[in-house]
Amino acid sequence: MNLPPLAIEPLSKAAFAPFGTVIERDGADIRMINEGTTTRFHALSDVDVAREGGTPILSIFAGTPRPVPIAITMLERHPLGSQSFMPLSDEDWLVVVAPTNSDDSAPAFDALRCFSARGDQGVTYAPGVWHHPLLVLAPQDFLIADRAGPAGEDASANLTEYWFDGVAAAISL
Amino acid sequence: MNLPPLAIEPLSKAAFAPFGTVIERDGADIRMINEGTTTRFHALSDVDVAREGGTPILSIFAGTPRPVPIAITMLERHPLGSQSFMPLSDEDWLVVVAPTNSDDSAPAFDALRCFSARGDQGVTYAPGVWHHPLLVLAPQDFLIADRAGPAGEDASANLTEYWFDGVAAAISL
Repeated sequence: MNLPPLAIEPLSKAAFAPFGTVIERDGADIRMINEGTTTRFHALSDVDVAREGGTPILSIFAGTPRPVPIAITMLERHPLGSQSFMPLSDEDWLVVVAPTNSDDSAPAFDALRCFSARGDQGVTYAPGVWHHPLLVLAPQDFLIADRAGPAGEDASANLTEYWFDGVAAAISL
Repeated sequence: MNLPPLAIEPLSKAAFAPFGTVIERDGADIRMINEGTTTRFHALSDVDVAREGGTPILSIFAGTPRPVPIAITMLERHPLGSQSFMPLSDEDWLVVVAPTNSDDSAPAFDALRCFSARGDQGVTYAPGVWHHPLLVLAPQDFLIADRAGPAGEDASANLTEYWFDGVAAAISL
């Protein structure tokens, strides 16, 4: 099978807007605080997790690289909340997303996008946005802000996985 | 005036418990996800910002060091929400907090505490906890999760500053 090559685009607010928010200093609302010792890059992203009794939590994800070329065989989404990823070390990493198909049942995998994020850029996937699980190029940790459901909620309420029939695309570095 | 020396303690969950939460991998609920490529250190901290219509936001703070010895002349608190700080680079930093006095009007500045945090440790100040603004030992950026008020809310609704009459303590490094 000849896999379609997946182009790697630089991550930017404009290109990523259909999928969520880029967490970065560039273009931020800047406020000097703490007697001038701290620069606040204000409100770079919302954390949108309140529906159906959700509350925001912080976690750390420690990612390890997959074999290259990276085979894209599935995407996932969180229908009830956003999920934010911010790198804790300054290494480039990858963000793979897709729009949803017309009946909102599956990712439009012929419209996959792959973004190269800098180590000082995070992203927030908007609720319901199809995205690939964490893709790092070297072992790298992230701070995650996402949704905890109310007591008793099944974890599957906020996670949908879609597995392709085979490999949808491959990323060569 | 002879300033009381402020002892620097290592940051730990137990020592910091009266003031909030330490965001760290040690002791976490660990889950392997993403086909075994990612370790999730789950729910290290809540983000408690919902009262009076608040919503969670992510910001970046870029901190610069203050002159040494560091003069502690004020503390602040956020009555309506927690505030989480996670370092984005692996440098030690300082956390200064105090309990509140018996009528909840001011920090008990004779009970100041100073913790040395590692670069892989963040903290969440619980709502209403008196803390010093960001103290770094080298230029260092942090991801911040805190509260945005509803439209029209005055910023002072969620910020109280208490200025000491002089210098309450000094931190020598």
